[in-house]
Amino acid sequence: MADGEFDLIRRHFSRPAPPGVLGVGDDCALLPTQPGAMAISTDLLVEGRHFFSDVDPAALGHKSLAVNLSDLAAMGAQPAGFVLGLALPRIDHDFLAGFARGMYALADRHACPLIGGDTTRGQDGIVISITIFGTVAPDDALRRDGARPDDDIWVSGCLGDADIALRLLLGEDAFPPGADRSALLAATRRALEWPEPRLALGQGLRGVACAALDISDGLLQDLGHVLTASGVGARVDADAVPVSPAVAALPVPLRRLAALSGGDVYELCFTAAPGSRARVIAAAAAAGVPVTRIGQITAAPGLRLVDASGDPIDPLPHGGYDHFA
Amino acid sequence: MADGEFDLIRRHFSRPAPPGVLGVGDDCALLPTQPGAMAISTDLLVEGRHFFSDVDPAALGHKSLAVNLSDLAAMGAQPAGFVLGLALPRIDHDFLAGFARGMYALADRHACPLIGGDTTRGQDGIVISITIFGTVAPDDALRRDGARPDDDIWVSGCLGDADIALRLLLGEDAFPPGADRSALLAATRRALEWPEPRLALGQGLRGVACAALDISDGLLQDLGHVLTASGVGARVDADAVPVSPAVAALPVPLRRLAALSGGDVYELCFTAAPGSRARVIAAAAAAGVPVTRIGQITAAPGLRLVDASGDPIDPLPHGGYDHFA
Repeated sequence: MADGEFDLIRRHFSRPAPPGVLGVGDDCALLPTQPGAMAISTDLLVEGRHFFSDVDPAALGHKSLAVNLSDLAAMGAQPAGFVLGLALPRIDHDFLAGFARGMYALADRHACPLIGGDTTRGQDGIVISITIFGTVAPDDALRRDGARPDDDIWVSGCLGDADIALRLLLGEDAFPPGADRSALLAATRRALEWPEPRLALGQGLRGVACAALDISDGLLQDLGHVLTASGVGARVDADAVPVSPAVAALPVPLRRLAALSGGDVYELCFTAAPGSRARVIAAAAAAGVPVTRIGQITAAPGLRLVDASGDPIDPLPHGGYDHFA
Repeated sequence: MADGEFDLIRRHFSRPAPPGVLGVGDDCALLPTQPGAMAISTDLLVEGRHFFSDVDPAALGHKSLAVNLSDLAAMGAQPAGFVLGLALPRIDHDFLAGFARGMYALADRHACPLIGGDTTRGQDGIVISITIFGTVAPDDALRRDGARPDDDIWVSGCLGDADIALRLLLGEDAFPPGADRSALLAATRRALEWPEPRLALGQGLRGVACAALDISDGLLQDLGHVLTASGVGARVDADAVPVSPAVAALPVPLRRLAALSGGDVYELCFTAAPGSRARVIAAAAAAGVPVTRIGQITAAPGLRLVDASGDPIDPLPHGGYDHFA
């Protein structure tokens, strides 16, 4: 019998399932469940839209899983497993081997086994679909609708690197004459291609943060979802948003644009009561991830941007990444 | 802010989540869990490969979910929800409205809510990714590895209609001269475009069937997976495989080819001890689905095909549908 598809899947993605889990090979995978909730997220990545055709396959395998793990992190959930759908224009074993290597390295670090999948020949371009599962007690889940007036607004890590790397790879003319583009790319590219999902931080913020999400489309756009869901507003200090030394050295408008509107970040943005500052800092220290306060939730709706002296800043020219813009 | 993607999702796919479920709109959906197991299946459907570009969008919405529900049926699981990924070359509201209508009609009949998703602009062609979740007690799940020597082999419904409809739509020259192709297409097309997942039957077979799967790639290929997983063989009476009147009227080689190797069937194939025949028939009657015995599991490995008089039939020229053939 023609068994090409099954051989393909087996060769690159077959591993024994963890104890108690029925993995690849039946009509369904079976994941043991306990009382509580399963956190579920799904992402579709399309060649030419979410990644370049010449991307390092290992980086692509890493990032495809990282963006889904980041959704679990934003809910405070513990990874339990994931399924992978791959539409490939052709079978390229080098690509598949690299992709699997990058994906499994990250999966192993977070004890998140591949438990099922579907592989098919696609048309033009690779399409990657990952659906991920995590466990969380429903009352502990970090949702978007829990922000309250006077909450501090926090972000993890640095913002803007991925956006700058993407602009450089796209050959954009946004940089000052004489900028050392290759040094800047070297300093920022890892954030774009190898983002680190903040799972330990998300789990540490359960019972501490009031609302949380991960920044995928840009800080302002994503924070806007928290404000809408929670029925509140915010004041954000644009110049308090943490950036790397490379981004800090850029002209102010470009730095702000990258930090405030740049997508593909996969850091957490969360709110917590001012009385919880010590607990936030302790959770961040335990997770080994820096966190920075960048503003406050307000009862008045809308998002007001201010600079370091508290003066209002005009809205930015670009409000985040829209997959259908 | 640019919000086209979110508006798009909201307009066609937004519904209140069922009580206790956190649906579309946060980083993850939250599905309540009880002690037991979550059955999980994922499928990727690619335009031009799994469906025609001019397919009725409502039929496509139905079938995209049906093939996943069928995987739950084959495990004996109870649907709990699903997530949808859509890569679209452009926003076509007529397409999306029809797709959502067909999908929701089937989802509602099986109380299987859409709880999350991701929509993005793709390259050429539509790609649909569905991951579905169901609940089942681990010991009750109908797996592929439980077939035992002397088990009866059963199938539900009729096989072969979808294969014949596909050959007609592809303009294949496989039909006798003078065959009324349009009458044949009218008689078989519904099986291809509107398959009915056999959930009630699958659930009724828990504790009755020893092994089960749904027929997606063709009876012989799929039964082969049961034999491999269970370490057994089988004797199948090719002429006992149930077919519709339209397929029964075709020349014997074409009828056998469609019934034995035709894919896209989504009927169940299962095995049960001969002592369980009355229970199988009762489960089928309760589900309102006909079932037919087509052979026996053997201790000797391999799959032997025989005709109605028990004489061996040569292996068929085509062993099922391979997505990478």
